[in-house]
Amino acid sequence: DSKLKIFTCNSNPKLANQIADYIGIPMGESHTTSFSDGEIQVKLSESVRGSHVYIIQSTCAPVNDNLMELLVMVDALKRASAKSINVVIPYYGYARQDRKARSRDPITAKLVADLIEKAGAHRVIAMDLHAMQIQGFFDIPVDHLLGVPILAQYFRSKQIENPIVVSPDHGGVVRARKLADLLNAPLAIIDKRRPEPNVSEVMNIIGNIEGKTAILIDDIIDTAGTIVLGANALVEGGAKEVYACCTHPVLSGPAMDRLENSPLKEVIVTDTIPITHPNPTNKLKVLSVAPLLGEAIIRVHEELSISKLFEL
Amino acid sequence: DSKLKIFTCNSNPKLANQIADYIGIPMGESHTTSFSDGEIQVKLSESVRGSHVYIIQSTCAPVNDNLMELLVMVDALKRASAKSINVVIPYYGYARQDRKARSRDPITAKLVADLIEKAGAHRVIAMDLHAMQIQGFFDIPVDHLLGVPILAQYFRSKQIENPIVVSPDHGGVVRARKLADLLNAPLAIIDKRRPEPNVSEVMNIIGNIEGKTAILIDDIIDTAGTIVLGANALVEGGAKEVYACCTHPVLSGPAMDRLENSPLKEVIVTDTIPITHPNPTNKLKVLSVAPLLGEAIIRVHEELSISKLFEL
Ligand SMILES: Nc1ncnc2c1ncn2[C@@H]1O[C@H](COP(=O)(O)O)[C@@H](O)[C@H]1O
Ligand SMILES: Nc1ncnc2c1ncn2[C@@H]1O[C@H](COP(=O)(O)O)[C@@H](O)[C@H]1O
Repeated sequence: DSKLKIFTCNSNPKLANQIADYIGIPMGESHTTSFSDGEIQVKLSESVRGSHVYIIQSTCAPVNDNLMELLVMVDALKRASAKSINVVIPYYGYARQDRKARSRDPITAKLVADLIEKAGAHRVIAMDLHAMQIQGFFDIPVDHLLGVPILAQYFRSKQIENPIVVSPDHGGVVRARKLADLLNAPLAIIDKRRPEPNVSEVMNIIGNIEGKTAILIDDIIDTAGTIVLGANALVEGGAKEVYACCTHPVLSGPAMDRLENSPLKEVIVTDTIPITHPNPTNKLKVLSVAPLLGEAIIRVHEELSISKLFEL
Repeated sequence: DSKLKIFTCNSNPKLANQIADYIGIPMGESHTTSFSDGEIQVKLSESVRGSHVYIIQSTCAPVNDNLMELLVMVDALKRASAKSINVVIPYYGYARQDRKARSRDPITAKLVADLIEKAGAHRVIAMDLHAMQIQGFFDIPVDHLLGVPILAQYFRSKQIENPIVVSPDHGGVVRARKLADLLNAPLAIIDKRRPEPNVSEVMNIIGNIEGKTAILIDDIIDTAGTIVLGANALVEGGAKEVYACCTHPVLSGPAMDRLENSPLKEVIVTDTIPITHPNPTNKLKVLSVAPLLGEAIIRVHEELSISKLFEL
């Protein structure tokens, strides 16, 4: 369909190109640069009048620049008479500020949803939102895709013997259960307890991991503190080997060193966020979400159901 | 009035503190920091329930970070039940993207207005908006203050003999006329003409500057290209001395070196944007807008007219 166009900004051009390749259309021509003072400049080099446009942009670090690029791109497309503006956000930044955890907290995940809508987006396609409630922050349709099937496929192809899927906390049990089902594996949960204030947490493992290959799963690995503490506890608890996996490799601050120096055998992630570390650990394996997002875009554009393939 | 509170983020804390001092109240306690991955975290350390809050934040470089800090702060204050949220934006970034100069351009100045409103602001106090039309981009009240009186006061105190105010282009004539009136000085205009495509511009001066002290005025000095070309033309045209002044010292890229190496005697600016250059030229004189903004906040809070003192 000549009316389907893909644009991107600067957060994840490699993924965007792979999505366009999957769909079999050239990338829409645009240039997102900055002026001397750092203000973003978006130039659309082709007409979008009457087109259904999909913008691929992750709001990973530098999060505020990437978010603003997305908003300015939406504004430009709107004023250039695009028929519909669909924003594909493989990684949705600020998702962890999704509620007032303390009094007077902002709810930035909702603010970001409002900003995207106000700029003029008509639809959002997102992946593994940190909290499912974020879908409800939007008044426009949100298609929510999962990375778990992609991770499961990798572990199946490795034919791991005696696997057990481990959730690093109680909040991640639904995701871990999904992976366990797909791998026909049992489930364990790490139950963090602080026995007294100012005493460090005790990692208590619920489930029998003795002699098994543990697969830790989370949505985000950020500083890698949680996942590495979990891996240590699993090794101490008698696991034979420990893998970790996640959809979104935020990997900020000390993350790369921590993963490198951990007992983890491999860390499997996807390309919703590009790895920009100058010296990434060899333990990282990056799986592509391009076929998943490409397929989702085709199906959304053709108004076919995506529920069976991708939705939770 | 105990119900008036001042908050700030990280763009211009010195100005914010001076404004609070002028008003005679302590700064509201808040902390705007970032998480390990660069996402902004706003913590309000005091209650704002029922308060009329004024947030001082310039959206200067790093523009996207400073804008997002402002938006998250507004969100936090809104959810903390502030009675009114008034955003004081001494420098409004993206103001130059105020129209579709080329087809398919975004109008980012309008987008920013929409974002600020959507976040929950009830009123804006701004200074020397690049285009007066930006007031109309908001559906909430905008009080628009001018830097010209502050600049005029400085030149009057210097008792310059035989001054002539010069607008660097036709777009700035209204501002230059205002300064000329306040200084009782004549007005000249630099009329840039490109004789043929790809031939460099000719600076033609309309008005008699021979033997006079020229005062160039603009709203923004960004890369300083325009102002330095203007200064050169004025010297060649026989001006005795050349001063430059502006409200907003963006001073990006080569600006500082250009000013230093120019024939300009002094460059008078205000503190709507802090000077962050590690090695600023001695030619720079910074005047404070704190009394003006402080007075404006007091008058807005007391529902007094600010038109006579400040408005265009
Ligand atoms: N970018 C971030 N980095 C680290 N922590 C965050 C970030 N954003 C929000 N948080 C905190 O993470 C917590 C939410 O995480 P969770 O309990 O896993 O949903 C809240 O206490 C937030 O204050
Ligand atoms: N941050 C910026 N730096 C330099 N030029 C800009 C910036 N933002 C917008 N512009 C351009 O400046 C022009 C508007 O300036 P003006 O004609 O003085 O209103 C437009 O052509 C814009 O593309």
